[in-house]
Amino acid sequence: MIKTDILIIGAGPTGLFAVFEAGLLQLKCHLIDALPQPGGQCAEIYPKKPIYDIPGFPEILAGELVDNLMEQIKPFQPGFTLGERAETIEKLEDGSFVVTTNKGTKHNAPIVAIAGGLGSFEPRKPILDNLSKFEDNGVAYMIKEPEIYRNKKVLIAGGGDSALDWSIFLANIASEVTLVHRRNEFRGALDSVEKVQELKNQGKINLITPAEVVGLHGDDKLEKVTVKKTDTSQEMDVEVDNFIPLFGLSPKLGPIAEWGLEIEKNAIKVDNSLDYQTNIPGIYAIGDVNTYPGKLKLILCGFHEATLMCQSAYQRIFPNKKYVMKYTTVGGVLGFDGSKKEAPKAVVKTIK
Amino acid sequence: MIKTDILIIGAGPTGLFAVFEAGLLQLKCHLIDALPQPGGQCAEIYPKKPIYDIPGFPEILAGELVDNLMEQIKPFQPGFTLGERAETIEKLEDGSFVVTTNKGTKHNAPIVAIAGGLGSFEPRKPILDNLSKFEDNGVAYMIKEPEIYRNKKVLIAGGGDSALDWSIFLANIASEVTLVHRRNEFRGALDSVEKVQELKNQGKINLITPAEVVGLHGDDKLEKVTVKKTDTSQEMDVEVDNFIPLFGLSPKLGPIAEWGLEIEKNAIKVDNSLDYQTNIPGIYAIGDVNTYPGKLKLILCGFHEATLMCQSAYQRIFPNKKYVMKYTTVGGVLGFDGSKKEAPKAVVKTIK
Repeated sequence: MIKTDILIIGAGPTGLFAVFEAGLLQLKCHLIDALPQPGGQCAEIYPKKPIYDIPGFPEILAGELVDNLMEQIKPFQPGFTLGERAETIEKLEDGSFVVTTNKGTKHNAPIVAIAGGLGSFEPRKPILDNLSKFEDNGVAYMIKEPEIYRNKKVLIAGGGDSALDWSIFLANIASEVTLVHRRNEFRGALDSVEKVQELKNQGKINLITPAEVVGLHGDDKLEKVTVKKTDTSQEMDVEVDNFIPLFGLSPKLGPIAEWGLEIEKNAIKVDNSLDYQTNIPGIYAIGDVNTYPGKLKLILCGFHEATLMCQSAYQRIFPNKKYVMKYTTVGGVLGFDGSKKEAPKAVVKTIK
Repeated sequence: MIKTDILIIGAGPTGLFAVFEAGLLQLKCHLIDALPQPGGQCAEIYPKKPIYDIPGFPEILAGELVDNLMEQIKPFQPGFTLGERAETIEKLEDGSFVVTTNKGTKHNAPIVAIAGGLGSFEPRKPILDNLSKFEDNGVAYMIKEPEIYRNKKVLIAGGGDSALDWSIFLANIASEVTLVHRRNEFRGALDSVEKVQELKNQGKINLITPAEVVGLHGDDKLEKVTVKKTDTSQEMDVEVDNFIPLFGLSPKLGPIAEWGLEIEKNAIKVDNSLDYQTNIPGIYAIGDVNTYPGKLKLILCGFHEATLMCQSAYQRIFPNKKYVMKYTTVGGVLGFDGSKKEAPKAVVKTIK
């Protein structure tokens, strides 16, 4: 059982920044996220896109913002349960919560902060008879550990940025990369499209278009897929170790919708007049996942909500302590790792 | 009469960021500030201090944050009335407001956003009989234009960072710099104290300590001050063109307190459950100047409040238009100066 002060569901920018604000109050955090890395959409969907409305950054790439936040929260040593989806919640007699993931990992905390964005990102899957048989036996919808594809024969399906970028990346790792797309046209960054063309010309990527995967074969694990050219209806078998359909991720509120929280338009209602708490005391919702009158789904709003949530959480955990806010310019940042950042102190010194 | 869409009182980080959010809605802003430059406290009081709790910046100097915000809002060409304090407000028949400064500058806008921080910074003044006679005739409490001191004889009084830093700065501009402090010890950044010691050793700064200015003399303008050594009670006259007492700035809500706004603990009450509007429709209060249950006086909270305020302002100005929020990652930033920032567009391209 993983124990922490604030269990944060969702490791996007809002969830990450909550770690910082909690840390200033000496509260520890642990984050659960269905994606394989922290950063939420910013890391998974548009890491190379510039954002223009983060205060103080005339322009910042989404991936850079995540890197900066990870650096900012480092002193507070957050824990992570990644690649798992928060599934069930249970309230214990002591008032604390136990959250269990789809893989059975259990977490216990007095405070739960849902920072789930638009929901957990679920892959769009191709419709193939025996697909589920090969899941985790050769079929994957996200690439968590590129190294497991070293010297493997990999077939990627898809026509967008993910399919392009991973084909490029794996061309140097896998023994064989085949890219299958139902059209001849790919949609993505110009750089990526051109790079795939180049790798195809060099024979480092096998391209089959317009085509789709129509059959999966193998005993215990995937050994072969059938690819059908959609223009000629010709079918061919391709020997592969891995089939990775990258047809996009679509966010789903998912199991959280069944936790007894008040939901409105696929978002969790919170008390914006005070602390972004839900109808269940001790459970907060911050960032894009929540709703209230005038709500804007902006990262900068999530930062504010996370901050007020942490203050309220502190008061719930320590009902008898009065916390006096200290500015970081004055008090500095005291990490759980023993690190200390602080402004150079003024000296008092005689001038003779 | 200066006309704008949103008149912002206070050019600190919150007021500056409001320009950006208003700009995304194609609303123009004008800012009034009592200080001689934008940035509020961050620029005037602690430009060289690191802040650690701006989301996405593990560390940023307050002055850098202001510079970044100025860069971020540049496309939206805000107007500034600096070095003047907003004094009176009047509501016209058309529902818009006229705000007049202490120097008589008039501004008209349908929306007023008070982003006044802890108030307008008023200098602490020495107690000297004929002080007011010499104000703007040789006596100044803030340095707005260092160039006006070129080849002048300047006497600075004070023992903190401002007194140290301006003595250093003016040592290269003025013909004579005298620094007077009531103690021998100065309190400030080690660098600054050491630099003043060095300039004193080089004869570029005359140091008189422990001492204070006890008399001002001159016909129309200041010509001479009397300095009294506080250890020996010895008095001496020093010929000067300028006397600049730098005894600190203390924030005062000031005339705004008389505008009929609901005030609580020296802050303006706002509706945090919706849009940070005050009890007077059309007047908002954002950032450190406002108060509501759970309020935290943090820059990052001001950013959020400014953003929601702008949305509400838009609806007040255009009651019949429905604004659909566009993400800057998608819609980019369209400046009033004709500039356009936007993410590189995806291409759709055949790979052969």
